[in-house]
Amino acid sequence: MFAHRNNDDGPVVILGLGRFGRSLATELTNSGVEVLCVDSDASLVQELSTSFDHIVQGDVSNPEVLWQLGVEEASRVIIAIGSHVEASVLAASAVIAMGVPDVWAKAYKESHATLLQQIGVHHIVRPEVDMGKRVARLIRNHVEDYLEFTHGFAVAAATPPARLLGKTVGEVNAKRPGLEIIAVQRGDGNFRNARDTDTLESGDLIIIAGPPTRVERETERD
Amino acid sequence: MFAHRNNDDGPVVILGLGRFGRSLATELTNSGVEVLCVDSDASLVQELSTSFDHIVQGDVSNPEVLWQLGVEEASRVIIAIGSHVEASVLAASAVIAMGVPDVWAKAYKESHATLLQQIGVHHIVRPEVDMGKRVARLIRNHVEDYLEFTHGFAVAAATPPARLLGKTVGEVNAKRPGLEIIAVQRGDGNFRNARDTDTLESGDLIIIAGPPTRVERETERD
Repeated sequence: MFAHRNNDDGPVVILGLGRFGRSLATELTNSGVEVLCVDSDASLVQELSTSFDHIVQGDVSNPEVLWQLGVEEASRVIIAIGSHVEASVLAASAVIAMGVPDVWAKAYKESHATLLQQIGVHHIVRPEVDMGKRVARLIRNHVEDYLEFTHGFAVAAATPPARLLGKTVGEVNAKRPGLEIIAVQRGDGNFRNARDTDTLESGDLIIIAGPPTRVERETERD
Repeated sequence: MFAHRNNDDGPVVILGLGRFGRSLATELTNSGVEVLCVDSDASLVQELSTSFDHIVQGDVSNPEVLWQLGVEEASRVIIAIGSHVEASVLAASAVIAMGVPDVWAKAYKESHATLLQQIGVHHIVRPEVDMGKRVARLIRNHVEDYLEFTHGFAVAAATPPARLLGKTVGEVNAKRPGLEIIAVQRGDGNFRNARDTDTLESGDLIIIAGPPTRVERETERD
């Protein structure tokens, strides 16, 4: 099953096939990544058996089951179990004890996230909470899209505020060191890298990068 | 209640206070945006009454209730109802009929998303599915963070692949028109804008921007 064992892009083990686990498994499979899916629900496993090459029914909270499946050989495991906190933390505990180097887990609520962190899980995702924060960002900042990186850098797609219209990208960037318009989208076209000579027009969309507070201030409407 | 009625940053109405709705409401409140929260669960509303200034118990799937609350005056409404598809689409239908110009809704599954789209909801979010896709992206591409904008542009934070080490940002950018290293993070520092003279070292983190397929190829490990 683990044909690519020694390859960095080896199989990814996904424990739990709720909406999050399925979305993840589908996306990885579509892009050619080998996936081993495990869920305790036999009828769900049966239903999804044609969608995924490697799908197994088993109690993922039982370390014995995980050993039998060879999970300790995986380099990446995602615990995608939904609201069943006990099963999630038992699975996480077993996978961490196996020494898997890259473990992700979905957390249901804050106390669950804390527990997963204490167990030693490397990456914790909270779909509902994270998405709530993200939508708040888009709504508050009137931006089309926004990503804040972990260490003080953000990128936002927004319509240029009126005060920037008629100015060139070169002028705007020169006046704002540290803040940079990196791409422009015009009409129905795609984004392309910004050129210093591009004059900003109403109807454009720009991607602007820099420190989060400055990106926010610069994309504020006027 | 709608003190900022004529302001672009006027109150945001949130219908449904599950994990997604609460996260959104908290984030908006913390950043000074006025929020009106409505949920049908009286005990939940009671419990959260100290957390939010404007929180009301009411059946959000009933258009009468929405009219009484003055929802038609809002410029932005988010239908954050969880898995209760009927309540969600009834609320969406009422809010769209009221002519609210910016309506967001959370979808539980694909068929729900389609229905919301047909009703005319402007922005649809699927936390579990969207987060599954996002994590797949991070896992597959070995990147720390990744955002794909709607129109052919992506930004990724990644460790520079070995083939780029020892080269300067200027050299790398010049050889790859359309693809650009925009920021560098060194040691424990923050990201800062990349300078042409920065030499890429192992241990750095870079932010690279450009067309999605090229960003993916460039951040591939070697």
